[in-house]
Amino acid sequence: MRLRHKPWAQDYMKEQSSIYIAEPASLKGAWASEFKNGNPIYIEVGSGKGAFITGMAHQHPDINFIAIELFESVAVTIVQKLVETPQSNVRVLTVDAKDLRDYFEKGEVSRVYLNFSDPWPKTRHAKRRLTYKTFLSTYEDILPAKGQIHFKTDNRKLFESSLMTMSAYGMRFDWMSLDLHANEPEDNVRTEYEERFSSMGQPIYRMEATYQN
Amino acid sequence: MRLRHKPWAQDYMKEQSSIYIAEPASLKGAWASEFKNGNPIYIEVGSGKGAFITGMAHQHPDINFIAIELFESVAVTIVQKLVETPQSNVRVLTVDAKDLRDYFEKGEVSRVYLNFSDPWPKTRHAKRRLTYKTFLSTYEDILPAKGQIHFKTDNRKLFESSLMTMSAYGMRFDWMSLDLHANEPEDNVRTEYEERFSSMGQPIYRMEATYQN
Repeated sequence: MRLRHKPWAQDYMKEQSSIYIAEPASLKGAWASEFKNGNPIYIEVGSGKGAFITGMAHQHPDINFIAIELFESVAVTIVQKLVETPQSNVRVLTVDAKDLRDYFEKGEVSRVYLNFSDPWPKTRHAKRRLTYKTFLSTYEDILPAKGQIHFKTDNRKLFESSLMTMSAYGMRFDWMSLDLHANEPEDNVRTEYEERFSSMGQPIYRMEATYQN
Repeated sequence: MRLRHKPWAQDYMKEQSSIYIAEPASLKGAWASEFKNGNPIYIEVGSGKGAFITGMAHQHPDINFIAIELFESVAVTIVQKLVETPQSNVRVLTVDAKDLRDYFEKGEVSRVYLNFSDPWPKTRHAKRRLTYKTFLSTYEDILPAKGQIHFKTDNRKLFESSLMTMSAYGMRFDWMSLDLHANEPEDNVRTEYEERFSSMGQPIYRMEATYQN
């Protein structure tokens, strides 16, 4: 994603304290109190401009959603959307995925979504892919036993490497499509990337993977 | 595959006793004596007309190959090819894949190839797919520990269901391509189907899957 420098983003987000959580470590183990209910919490790691998570939050009012987007200049777009169309079941964080254990207790997150993650195509960057084993271990530590990752991408090589790292981690694939839009589920929420790449005739790959511990 | 009735096929094959093994149960545990060497044995389940296995046998003279093709009217084409161009490291069987334990000891087969297997697209026929759990169990019983299946197909739904049944079986994917011909390995041996479907622009899927026990 092309990043534009937005020096005002952080100040703007901090003013929206019902949407943007500037210090998420203080909520570790206490997210139910932040949402004021005990509904399941689903997180999306790498939310981009938030089309997926805001669409999902609208479709599933009984689920709490947390958008995690490292770049403030991108995350601010999600916050702006939520200021314009408030959704009480969404929060936004700008933190690094490798530190998720600092913000969530084991089992506090019920599902992890990864959508059109950065493919990091070079072998020497494999460790940065969000489905690399160290990230799989991080997600496992905040999910309950038998927790799930729902993952979609247009990037063939990222999907191939993810099938390998996840199976090597002992995960099981419970849902699989190698051409999502050939038979698109009615409840599929498209991301910005998904709209763009699908219209170019690129197949979209999607899986649901379950931890076996 | 369209089957033509060839009433002469069985008699013809039985005359080629150095190629066609009419009673493979008698060789269980003794395949090394049949090949007159201790080289690894790779089997292909569902060999069709044999382009893959004869190509592989030519490329790998230090491996013994066994083509398994249920239909005599199809297998006879492999036998005819081998009469025309003898290859001492190939044998042909016309047996049912579900009975492989009757013909091979545990560990007697070093690798299983599945190429463009019948997709059996209807859910009620899922048990007939050669990557269904009962078949995975059969292959496991004739392979050594950490044995491998090498599988390729043009059929998306068969590949999707295979990713799920194999991961549910605890297998690990060590090699994966969702578009084999986009970056075709130099040593890839194409099957008859592979030539035909690839020329139609259909992606070919390929994996290597390893048992974890």
